[in-house]
Amino acid sequence: MTHPTDLISVSYDELTANLSKGKIVERRLSEIRDSFLNPDLIDKMPTDEDPIVYRVTAVEPSNGTGDLHYGLGIIYPGKVGPEYFLTKGHLHQARETAEVYIGLSGEGYMLLENEKTLETRMEPLGKGQIVYVPGHTAHRTVNTGDKPLTYFGVYPANAGHDYGAIGKRNFLKVIVEENGKPTLKDR
Amino acid sequence: MTHPTDLISVSYDELTANLSKGKIVERRLSEIRDSFLNPDLIDKMPTDEDPIVYRVTAVEPSNGTGDLHYGLGIIYPGKVGPEYFLTKGHLHQARETAEVYIGLSGEGYMLLENEKTLETRMEPLGKGQIVYVPGHTAHRTVNTGDKPLTYFGVYPANAGHDYGAIGKRNFLKVIVEENGKPTLKDR
Repeated sequence: MTHPTDLISVSYDELTANLSKGKIVERRLSEIRDSFLNPDLIDKMPTDEDPIVYRVTAVEPSNGTGDLHYGLGIIYPGKVGPEYFLTKGHLHQARETAEVYIGLSGEGYMLLENEKTLETRMEPLGKGQIVYVPGHTAHRTVNTGDKPLTYFGVYPANAGHDYGAIGKRNFLKVIVEENGKPTLKDR
Repeated sequence: MTHPTDLISVSYDELTANLSKGKIVERRLSEIRDSFLNPDLIDKMPTDEDPIVYRVTAVEPSNGTGDLHYGLGIIYPGKVGPEYFLTKGHLHQARETAEVYIGLSGEGYMLLENEKTLETRMEPLGKGQIVYVPGHTAHRTVNTGDKPLTYFGVYPANAGHDYGAIGKRNFLKVIVEENGKPTLKDR
């Protein structure tokens, strides 16, 4: 098993979520429109722009048993109707693998949905907050503040990302603004 | 596999390294005297106090395959002669398991020593710095600044801590102050 020297040491910025190394994935609003409760509202938004909703930079130092990968995410502030900007969300391909999320700046929540019991939880993930995502749990991150939300996620190297399973039917619940505050509601 | 509800959501403070939940281990100078290059210097220190050198608070949400544990560490500033305050250091019992360290505040380094090749590295771990500790690598953290150094460590639930192997012979190299800056030297 090789451990490429250049990924032992990496630097990060907690506000911009920039990493000195890693693979970047950026999602614009048009690319994740079906993740929202009401995609039609996107067409009615008063701008021709297609804003970046979120960006994740992933570092994968090695892929053996016992190895770990990690990512630094940023979700920009914004809403589609009453629904906050969010990540697509995913399950891990290796379903039993967990993930630790560490909130660095901003305000937000994670939406957790157990794929067996369908139990849903809404857990705070802002600056100073940690969320443990157990195995078999679809997870989505939501920015409920007016600044970028940034966070680390650390996961086993063999976890893999499965966007299909949850993408097809979407999460059962949504996090929307109601009476000025983030509220968990049925889709 | 159970995932105790009360460890899904935990809050932390980046400056004090306090966690809202978790198991605390604290090490005073007298308990880790043999980790230093010259323990005799401790006896000559001009105080009757036995300061806390470091504290780690560990959170262990679950113990199944694919699960993760994490800890938040704080090392206080200080020196024994030219040698900076440090952690005892350890290998993982499950030797192939890695660990991701994320620096939150302060200034410091990690000392990495591969148990097979004996290759040593000194990698920065202060605010904004990440160190990937591959498997089979003894690791120690050192505070080289004048404020507390705080950091997260995330590791597979099955990693385990082996303090014996490296404790007996200690690390091959030390990080000491030389000409006012942290320097890696042979023991």
